[in-house]
Amino acid sequence: MNDFDFEEERIKKEIIRVAAKRVLLQLPEGLKPEAPNLAQAIMQANALPIISADPCYGACDIAISEAESLGVDLIVHVGHAEFVRQARVPTIYVEAKAKVSVDKVVRQALPLLTDYKKIGIATSVQHLQELNRINEILIESGKTVLIGNFGQLAYAGQVIGCNYSNVVSIAPEVEAFLFVGGGLFHGLGVALSTSKPTVIADPYDNKAFSVSEEAKKILSQRWAGIQEAKGAKAFGIFVGLKPGQRRFEQALYVKDLAEKHGRAAYLFAAREITPELILEFPSLDAYVNTACPRVSLEAPKKFSKPMLTVNEFMVVVGDISWENMLKKGLFGN
Amino acid sequence: MNDFDFEEERIKKEIIRVAAKRVLLQLPEGLKPEAPNLAQAIMQANALPIISADPCYGACDIAISEAESLGVDLIVHVGHAEFVRQARVPTIYVEAKAKVSVDKVVRQALPLLTDYKKIGIATSVQHLQELNRINEILIESGKTVLIGNFGQLAYAGQVIGCNYSNVVSIAPEVEAFLFVGGGLFHGLGVALSTSKPTVIADPYDNKAFSVSEEAKKILSQRWAGIQEAKGAKAFGIFVGLKPGQRRFEQALYVKDLAEKHGRAAYLFAAREITPELILEFPSLDAYVNTACPRVSLEAPKKFSKPMLTVNEFMVVVGDISWENMLKKGLFGN
Repeated sequence: MNDFDFEEERIKKEIIRVAAKRVLLQLPEGLKPEAPNLAQAIMQANALPIISADPCYGACDIAISEAESLGVDLIVHVGHAEFVRQARVPTIYVEAKAKVSVDKVVRQALPLLTDYKKIGIATSVQHLQELNRINEILIESGKTVLIGNFGQLAYAGQVIGCNYSNVVSIAPEVEAFLFVGGGLFHGLGVALSTSKPTVIADPYDNKAFSVSEEAKKILSQRWAGIQEAKGAKAFGIFVGLKPGQRRFEQALYVKDLAEKHGRAAYLFAAREITPELILEFPSLDAYVNTACPRVSLEAPKKFSKPMLTVNEFMVVVGDISWENMLKKGLFGN
Repeated sequence: MNDFDFEEERIKKEIIRVAAKRVLLQLPEGLKPEAPNLAQAIMQANALPIISADPCYGACDIAISEAESLGVDLIVHVGHAEFVRQARVPTIYVEAKAKVSVDKVVRQALPLLTDYKKIGIATSVQHLQELNRINEILIESGKTVLIGNFGQLAYAGQVIGCNYSNVVSIAPEVEAFLFVGGGLFHGLGVALSTSKPTVIADPYDNKAFSVSEEAKKILSQRWAGIQEAKGAKAFGIFVGLKPGQRRFEQALYVKDLAEKHGRAAYLFAAREITPELILEFPSLDAYVNTACPRVSLEAPKKFSKPMLTVNEFMVVVGDISWENMLKKGLFGN
């Protein structure tokens, strides 16, 4: 856990500045083990820390109503940049910048990019401070580099789980993407959003690899889900209950569209959309998820019924072709 | 699902009476498959139904903030009697009375009660209308019957997952208990709360059986958890986020007590306290759950660390003996 900057001094200063008495500490899975240490820092600033133990996958899931119900003065949200503008509870975002160097792994990625000249680069908020360095290494090796800045996210070149607009916006001019960061999740997001060859440079495992095969596999699963949903008589349309996942009007639009196409449609509300949860509704045939599009994609085999993104549902009812949907991006929203 | 009365006509009348436009429909696991049918009844009253898909185990979990965030005018909460007094969102409780007869299974239970003369009877809200009938059958067979009414619950003789005060209040005068209802859950609750021989008469499976062995097994697991927690250096104290599970002052009290006994203690907030969730905090040794005491008891083997009730924590720090704690009830709160 020493690999990240948790900005303890800034947290303490802010607590003192706003004279916070109770602080809700929210970290994503993976960084949660650091919570007791950060709680101690909060105590040093004479505030009472409360660790949020519920799952948290993004800044869409900022614990506003939880903070209000606990009488909290300040939320410390770790691991993500601001996503939901809100003034209900003062909030500081600790982006948890990684201290790991990316030089070595970016050089390892170069052989996988030999066929391509124009490279789009992207990273998660943890490595944004390395964006110039990544750029330099690629330019030194003769590449042309593009960094997208579509204006929907906090920073140029940044991607988050449900928003790849920065890479989508430069995809037409790019031959391949390089994503720098840990795990498969974001690199897959880049590949699925852009349909471009995508290489991940993971500075934690010190491995560089292509995700194109994995993306193909997921696309074929998505295609199969769409085909299955074409025969569905009754749809469940999910509205998310997390602050940045609540798209009620979109859910109503999908419901009307389903009914216009002769299907029964029911609105569902949920905080966490899980495979277990839909087992309780055996009379429904398929679902559309307006909350978190990644939930649909990450566990496609685990859901017992198709769990479609809104764009995929448009393919089901014939309002858009599969090919055009792929151009928009599977989970563009 | 025809085994329960979902009071569709009352639901429709109430929607029309309060002129509700959006209705949030909340059912516990097990009754959720009925949701689409009830949604249709709501549509017949010209309101838009939204089915709450999140887990719901009791009326403690009334979806108030969810309803507010969705702009809902009326909550229809099925399967439980009112538990949380609140005026934020108009709510109707549909108790889902079972239509099944209990006569046969209560007679089947009689041979298991031959050694006892004074019998306490209890049931869940689904079968309360049969309480007089259960009483009659026992009296006909020569028993003395007691029905507790401690005043904390909506009805005499009623038990809910976290409140067995109606049976605890009559336990000193009773030789054995008969619980009438489905499954192990409530019968176990009676046995664990009272330490009395307890027989379940399950009218769905048409089976009568003693839960004393199962209760003993759970008690030995609880004892083992308490012993393990005696060596714990760092405790996590859970505050529940569900409206009827939020006991902040109690959690603070437990935290202070832990610190007074030389342990580190951190407050945690969570909506669902699950075995997966505590895996994220490897530096903690044991937990105290002030939210839902049944969560601690139902999955004792699945939690990787001790997950104690507040009463069990009192045994850990030596403020009460195991024997006296059992007299108070494992999860009395």
